[in-house]
Amino acid sequence: MTAPIPIVLLTDFGTHDTYVGQVKAVLTARAPGAPLIDLTHEVSPYAIDEGAWLLDTALPFLPAPAVVLAVVDPGVGSERLPIAVRAPVPGDPTAVRYFVGPDNGLLSAAIPPDARPSQPGPCPAPDGLDVRAIENPEARLATVSATFHGRDLFAPAVARIAVTGDHESLGSARDTLTLLPPFVGRREGQSVHGTVIHSDRYGNLVTTIRKEQLPSSFILDINSHCIERVVRTFSDAPPGALACHVDSSGFLAIAEREGNAAERLGAARGDAVVLRPR
Amino acid sequence: MTAPIPIVLLTDFGTHDTYVGQVKAVLTARAPGAPLIDLTHEVSPYAIDEGAWLLDTALPFLPAPAVVLAVVDPGVGSERLPIAVRAPVPGDPTAVRYFVGPDNGLLSAAIPPDARPSQPGPCPAPDGLDVRAIENPEARLATVSATFHGRDLFAPAVARIAVTGDHESLGSARDTLTLLPPFVGRREGQSVHGTVIHSDRYGNLVTTIRKEQLPSSFILDINSHCIERVVRTFSDAPPGALACHVDSSGFLAIAEREGNAAERLGAARGDAVVLRPR
Amino acid sequence: MTAPIPIVLLTDFGTHDTYVGQVKAVLTARAPGAPLIDLTHEVSPYAIDEGAWLLDTALPFLPAPAVVLAVVDPGVGSERLPIAVRAPVPGDPTAVRYFVGPDNGLLSAAIPPDARPSQPGPCPAPDGLDVRAIENPEARLATVSATFHGRDLFAPAVARIAVTGDHESLGSARDTLTLLPPFVGRREGQSVHGTVIHSDRYGNLVTTIRKEQLPSSFILDINSHCIERVVRTFSDAPPGALACHVDSSGFLAIAEREGNAAERLGAARGDAVVLRPR
Repeated sequence: MTAPIPIVLLTDFGTHDTYVGQVKAVLTARAPGAPLIDLTHEVSPYAIDEGAWLLDTALPFLPAPAVVLAVVDPGVGSERLPIAVRAPVPGDPTAVRYFVGPDNGLLSAAIPPDARPSQPGPCPAPDGLDVRAIENPEARLATVSATFHGRDLFAPAVARIAVTGDHESLGSARDTLTLLPPFVGRREGQSVHGTVIHSDRYGNLVTTIRKEQLPSSFILDINSHCIERVVRTFSDAPPGALACHVDSSGFLAIAEREGNAAERLGAARGDAVVLRPR
Repeated sequence: MTAPIPIVLLTDFGTHDTYVGQVKAVLTARAPGAPLIDLTHEVSPYAIDEGAWLLDTALPFLPAPAVVLAVVDPGVGSERLPIAVRAPVPGDPTAVRYFVGPDNGLLSAAIPPDARPSQPGPCPAPDGLDVRAIENPEARLATVSATFHGRDLFAPAVARIAVTGDHESLGSARDTLTLLPPFVGRREGQSVHGTVIHSDRYGNLVTTIRKEQLPSSFILDINSHCIERVVRTFSDAPPGALACHVDSSGFLAIAEREGNAAERLGAARGDAVVLRPR
Repeated sequence: MTAPIPIVLLTDFGTHDTYVGQVKAVLTARAPGAPLIDLTHEVSPYAIDEGAWLLDTALPFLPAPAVVLAVVDPGVGSERLPIAVRAPVPGDPTAVRYFVGPDNGLLSAAIPPDARPSQPGPCPAPDGLDVRAIENPEARLATVSATFHGRDLFAPAVARIAVTGDHESLGSARDTLTLLPPFVGRREGQSVHGTVIHSDRYGNLVTTIRKEQLPSSFILDINSHCIERVVRTFSDAPPGALACHVDSSGFLAIAEREGNAAERLGAARGDAVVLRPR
């Protein structure tokens, strides 16, 4: 018997309730010994795009193989499809990762950014990807509630994959998969436009603009503030100063040294940022 | 040697401090290899009834056997008794679960709701239940503080059960157990009265009214608001609309689609709800 | 092959982001089977002294051996040194613990309080302590970011120690270590002066004053409030009353019974407390 595959969890459930605990109880009962790695359960409620971005940025650091259980699911219990995806691992032709969750764009990380569409929606599944509808009644709890598929439907499917390495028996193959566009800035003339995709624990504002898109020199505009300083790491800025840096995932971010840029700028997820020439 | 029994944790400790970490350090040292499942540590501080309800609703999904370590303990260090309970598992005559914590009603989940009293307080332990006082000095840390029995007393007892499957050596048998009444609505004429027992991460307000108690048609009153809409799942309501649904544990709940009903209604744990005929 | 050494985590990363999850993904991939114990990730952002105190108070309850991964690191990516320390375990001459993190004082728990300096700063490493700079390129991720050494540098070093028990191959030996003064009150005449070092989940205010420093009788002053009552445990105070007690780590603390002393007193980390004679 091979060791069970590590399970990676990302949800908007929070830890204030027992929702995550119930999911883990099901996983522990059905896939004993599988390591459980919490990426985060604090995705902003219902924020599919933030969840997809968080999964994108953590992906290079996940074990392979791994089964990712991702749930940000405002459409739970509606006709949106529960799916399980088997995807190749970029740079490692011998490994695969599995992604289990709602077919609402959250699982876009299964596809490299440059293969994603420019508009969100259902897309043909690329070569090498195997998408299954989760249909097999053996791979779910005896009773499936209308509002908690994480526990009743996704966790048993994840446990089955973690133990058997098989996801094909979960249900019929699907030709399409709902995808979000890649997280990337938009060039307009000499400017680059992006948005704040995540505000982190320190109040650092991470944008959708990638380091490859940075002009050699720029001023960043956000909420009527201009930021000119660009640093390599936090302590390169004077105490209390605002500065831009490339974050640990390769996205442009704004931080206040030993402070909180989000509070200082009154900024939050969804706010627009523009890089313009100096 | 058999594998250690999974340990399930529910407390009001939060994760802001190292309290949960210290408990887990003791469990890891004394029951190496026992899976640790966090149900939640965010029970409202001192809220025994909320903790008991959260344990009640998660119970059907826990492994069996399991050792539940539950601590919401405003009376820590006083004469309230530290106990360990062995209880049968409904529907599985071959399995047992253990419940370790303060004898203050928090462990009511060890008893099926219909066998609980109508008023809180000490009750005769039902047949099949084995209640022990935690007295054995070998099953505690060398020094027991006055304010942290979770670490010094309950965790070592839990570890001992998880490793040995024995709880009888923890101390003398007790005839009684403190119980809370079952969580259920109260019928008054044509109405059903309940309270908000929990407000979840999404601002969904879960009530003590069970699905079996729902009239075929009703209006829900809460904080001077009337809610008429009843849906099967969140997305059956229009965006931004308030609606009632039966939650994933079988209790009547109020949600705002992709919103926060608790904020919208200014409602919180303890608020009254009434179902009246349409 | 021996079982991997348990890994203990303490950071100011929070769990709102995937930072802790990325660290755990690296640990799980590189030290499969090592137990992961979260002490807390909610150290106040950038608060090295609070982190050091939290580690100090949890230390006696940690397994031995253990590898402690501690990160509160406002100077990440600057010239502050990443280090790994092997330290004896007080009271257990056969055991060691390892401490991995930035050399900024956070790892002071590796040294008993009475061997620490009276002023913060670099100190000669005491006998029996082995301090290494983390330099070995084999013990880090292929790419090291400027802002996330927890993932790229510390986690791989920790995994290596957990699996091999070897920290000497991480880098060259160092003669010095940055230390904070011990957490202890300051005597002035008949008074004892301290500060609030931590406000816990319940609003309990823990001070730097140790139980050994308590006069037989005293009045505590904080934020223009006087507290005269001293109790053994919370329920020895009347409901709603403020009282002092010795907390579960041996420090003087202030609590409101089933309330929140921090809110009631408008007090927070860093506030001064004075014990004066009655």
